[in-house]
Amino acid sequence: MTTQTETFPPVRNDARTAPPPLPAGAPTPDDVKAARKRIEGAAVLTPLLSSPFLDEMVGGRLLVKAEPLQRTGSFKFRGAYNKISQIPERDRARGVVAFSSGNHAQGVAHAAQISGIKATIVMPADAPAMKLANTRAYGAEVVTYDRYSEDREQVAAGVLERTGGTLVKPFDDPDIIAGQGTIGYEIAEQCAALGVVPDQIIVCCGGGGLIAGCSTAVSDALPGVPVYSAEPAGFDDTARSLVAGARLDNDPANRSVCDALLAERPGLLTFAVNSRLLSGGTVVTDREAFIAMRHAFERLKLVIEPGGAVALASALFARVPTAGRTTVVVASGGNVDGEMFGRALAAV
Amino acid sequence: MTTQTETFPPVRNDARTAPPPLPAGAPTPDDVKAARKRIEGAAVLTPLLSSPFLDEMVGGRLLVKAEPLQRTGSFKFRGAYNKISQIPERDRARGVVAFSSGNHAQGVAHAAQISGIKATIVMPADAPAMKLANTRAYGAEVVTYDRYSEDREQVAAGVLERTGGTLVKPFDDPDIIAGQGTIGYEIAEQCAALGVVPDQIIVCCGGGGLIAGCSTAVSDALPGVPVYSAEPAGFDDTARSLVAGARLDNDPANRSVCDALLAERPGLLTFAVNSRLLSGGTVVTDREAFIAMRHAFERLKLVIEPGGAVALASALFARVPTAGRTTVVVASGGNVDGEMFGRALAAV
Repeated sequence: MTTQTETFPPVRNDARTAPPPLPAGAPTPDDVKAARKRIEGAAVLTPLLSSPFLDEMVGGRLLVKAEPLQRTGSFKFRGAYNKISQIPERDRARGVVAFSSGNHAQGVAHAAQISGIKATIVMPADAPAMKLANTRAYGAEVVTYDRYSEDREQVAAGVLERTGGTLVKPFDDPDIIAGQGTIGYEIAEQCAALGVVPDQIIVCCGGGGLIAGCSTAVSDALPGVPVYSAEPAGFDDTARSLVAGARLDNDPANRSVCDALLAERPGLLTFAVNSRLLSGGTVVTDREAFIAMRHAFERLKLVIEPGGAVALASALFARVPTAGRTTVVVASGGNVDGEMFGRALAAV
Repeated sequence: MTTQTETFPPVRNDARTAPPPLPAGAPTPDDVKAARKRIEGAAVLTPLLSSPFLDEMVGGRLLVKAEPLQRTGSFKFRGAYNKISQIPERDRARGVVAFSSGNHAQGVAHAAQISGIKATIVMPADAPAMKLANTRAYGAEVVTYDRYSEDREQVAAGVLERTGGTLVKPFDDPDIIAGQGTIGYEIAEQCAALGVVPDQIIVCCGGGGLIAGCSTAVSDALPGVPVYSAEPAGFDDTARSLVAGARLDNDPANRSVCDALLAERPGLLTFAVNSRLLSGGTVVTDREAFIAMRHAFERLKLVIEPGGAVALASALFARVPTAGRTTVVVASGGNVDGEMFGRALAAV
């Protein structure tokens, strides 16, 4: 596993020079800094973990940003809290609305709960019972719909009309992107405290909000350090779109265990950012994500969910050269049930 | 599980007053503070984790000191590093020797490795392959013995005579106790940063080094806050010894999955400290430790080994009253294999 593959995404020619200007509507580094002030004290400053065994595997230094230890078990809390804490006083009473069956649902529900704002989360009726239960436990009203007979957009429109609440999008929103990007500044500061400058950073990518925010922060705090996306096979829309220079769809027939990363295509705003700031896209298989989860269990004592493990897998399976380099990977979440985790521990 | 039992160990009458003088040879709070300075930068300042779901279970606030995230996956690195970093220059070339099949072996091996000192670890030949491999991977020479035909003391004496090295005991040593006690000061500071004063602290107990050090620190940094031990059923020597006022043995026929806590009896020095500073001993079953591991997986995304989970189990199963209180528990380690972890995830 320490063998380096000979094919890897080309580093952008401008990776060591100033990035191109950000697109209209995108958050600036200052917006991400402002988000940091907002989430301070509410969000967990998650640790940067390491293990000499993982270092040996990559033939370099590997640092893992541990967002499973974030409130609600994933980075989603950051963006949700940054968004919700800025809702004007006059709109707070009408609450917030989100559509998600996963980590975004829990992040929004909990951010609203501790902000004293009512949250309504629209979820498919057949979402995992644990996720429905957790979202309710964070104080949200859960509105379910039948994903086979009902149109989600219509259900959504109905809830928004009924409540007059603020929609909290999962990724294509500058406040969400800025909130997730706080991870980038934390990585820069935590690396500095360790006395290291990372050579590269790998971040998982579904809709692309997390990596858009992180790369915005990195372009300011660690200018010139390349940021790569990591996606599961079959959902490599951002990797392909970066090459094509246009947003491409995934085949709707594709499947992956990485339930947190099953985007249809890159977001409009997120891809506008990512196409400017990323140095390339990497892709890993479900099996590689499972093996990364097992190594995180054995070597970091950290529970990572499949989608949260693809950046670690990308480093462990040498999707970018890691020998002699310091690589930072973001482990984005840990919301996985025991059955799925058992499958990962058995992966070889 | 939120129901409080009506029987719990009596809080010492002097729990809110000054503790009795420490026994001769025991580390002082200043010794623990000095250990903190020594381990700073070498050891991980592990986070204090929490979850609203666990808070609800205990009917109060629960904070979990996450030592599985410590170097080598357990608190043992702290004491080992504190001891080894004080070995005089003239003795360093002869190395260190330890006897352990578990977390102490790895802690000593790694502390010696990063101190540039040779370590020889005496382990039973039938120790788990993973533990033998890890100890070697940390650069130690492993000397195995047949635990059925060879006398460990003789093997030990032979290695010490051959190498002339410094023996690093697992718990009954003031430098080891002081190193483990650094956790107590960290807990005090991390609680202060959260703006809370703990009402009680629960720490697991094998030989008693960790809890002796922690209670020494707590007597200084959080005077009057009661500290309780947590032990697995069948290995409740400290709980019984505290009541008896004398060191009592465990029945050698007893068994437990908590392999990190299988002491024969309390240590001489550790019990001298613990009998003065602890407010009582709690006991949990293996099943309760497993369930605590499962909750840590689900709610904290933290991998805890069985012995590392007994303090959490003690809080979750109300061995001390937790309703309306802030309880800190130490999760002491996470070195567990996938098979055992799977058993814990399946526990009900």
